[in-house]
Amino acid sequence: MYFSDVISRINMTKKPLILVTNDDGINAPGIRTLISVMNTLGDVVVVAPDSPQSGMGHAITLNSTLYAEQVFVNDGPQKEYSCSGTPADCVKLAIREILDRKPDLCVSGINHGSNSSINVIYSGTMSAAVEAGIEGIPAIGFSLLDYTWNANFEASKSFVKTIAKKVLKEGLPDGIVLNVNVPNILKENIKGIKISRQAKANWVEEFDKRKNPQGKDYYWLSGKFVNLDGGEDTDEWALENNYVSVVPIQFDLTAHHFIKELNTWNLND
Amino acid sequence: MYFSDVISRINMTKKPLILVTNDDGINAPGIRTLISVMNTLGDVVVVAPDSPQSGMGHAITLNSTLYAEQVFVNDGPQKEYSCSGTPADCVKLAIREILDRKPDLCVSGINHGSNSSINVIYSGTMSAAVEAGIEGIPAIGFSLLDYTWNANFEASKSFVKTIAKKVLKEGLPDGIVLNVNVPNILKENIKGIKISRQAKANWVEEFDKRKNPQGKDYYWLSGKFVNLDGGEDTDEWALENNYVSVVPIQFDLTAHHFIKELNTWNLND
Repeated sequence: MYFSDVISRINMTKKPLILVTNDDGINAPGIRTLISVMNTLGDVVVVAPDSPQSGMGHAITLNSTLYAEQVFVNDGPQKEYSCSGTPADCVKLAIREILDRKPDLCVSGINHGSNSSINVIYSGTMSAAVEAGIEGIPAIGFSLLDYTWNANFEASKSFVKTIAKKVLKEGLPDGIVLNVNVPNILKENIKGIKISRQAKANWVEEFDKRKNPQGKDYYWLSGKFVNLDGGEDTDEWALENNYVSVVPIQFDLTAHHFIKELNTWNLND
Repeated sequence: MYFSDVISRINMTKKPLILVTNDDGINAPGIRTLISVMNTLGDVVVVAPDSPQSGMGHAITLNSTLYAEQVFVNDGPQKEYSCSGTPADCVKLAIREILDRKPDLCVSGINHGSNSSINVIYSGTMSAAVEAGIEGIPAIGFSLLDYTWNANFEASKSFVKTIAKKVLKEGLPDGIVLNVNVPNILKENIKGIKISRQAKANWVEEFDKRKNPQGKDYYWLSGKFVNLDGGEDTDEWALENNYVSVVPIQFDLTAHHFIKELNTWNLND
């Protein structure tokens, strides 16, 4: 097997290939920070939305066309592609059309705003990581608890690097991706990294009802986040207590513990 | 507690309140079938998207306005509202703005097309059910394995009624909703209902690359579904073997079984 030996020796000496994406759009300060950290760990290819996609959940583009074009940003050695689709589209397109081999790692973010607890469900950032996970690529979503464009990502850098480096070394089990959230405080006040579970929480929406100039009612969706979980092992607890939270999440959504009970319902009688 | 006694007596005599939504749009034959079945079980309020929202995942509308207006469809006693948002938006708006009390059940569908296995991740139908589940409302998503507009929902009716009736009676545990898929075969060939787990499967995308009239490349997303799971306890197995599949799904995405292992990574060293 001379030829494949040569190939594998080439791969051994190659730096890891890292796919970077996000949901705030390719120009967001959060992804620029993430790219700069990843450039210290491997060969970076960026495939990210051309515009903000927050709150897109795991949307994919089925009913319209997708554009992707290489863009040139003079801030590092990475290759970059701007895509008209959702974060999940970006990952699919990267894997099937843009990259010439399977990446060793996919990182998404750094999101401007929290993706802790129930926010993971609505998160475009996390949907990109999950999409990579489905493809068997170790994947991490990173978020900072500051939704402003001018958010300060300085404190995030070393934590992002530590976690990404570890995942590159250890890999992740099939079916699991990491959801990392960083509190919005100075680096010297962050106590460390805490492995956590997703807190039970929800949003109590307050629809802001208005009238348009034609007199028709319309709404703005807004709401208040409510943590319903008193546990000290949750991501919300970690963040409130100045830790970076790391939650392993899975995309087998089966509630395995309820299957036995459901079978007692005798739905076929 | 005289007053609350009266209230609870009124509620006891009241029919259950059922919220109906979908992701194919309020005019889709699938939701019209679902409404007709629910009218036999309770008081029905429909809040559904004004246009198809397939593949929207758990998207919510953060950056634009939402419209919702009552529409009058002369096919039953239900009240109906057409909404400009996503399926998750519809449920939020229904709960906070349209309904005067918490519904006893939320049903979503009947989707034109499968939401079995990994499709649950991309599904607008299921995102509506999950959204209701987060609010503590027993919720079910129904799908038929026929994506065409002219799909035949006849065989689905009795299974939809059986399962919805049972959930109205038994409720569902906190944090769990049901994902029901119906095979696209004649009713007499359906062997029954099978409680299942989500099969491990994915989509192998084939991007159809074309040039637009201006010479710019664009893509259509399409792909082939691949079931990677040999188990006979999965939803894919049930459907292939002519059963209706019922998968209990959860929105605590924590991979609890990996937390111990992650703690051995010593990320703080």
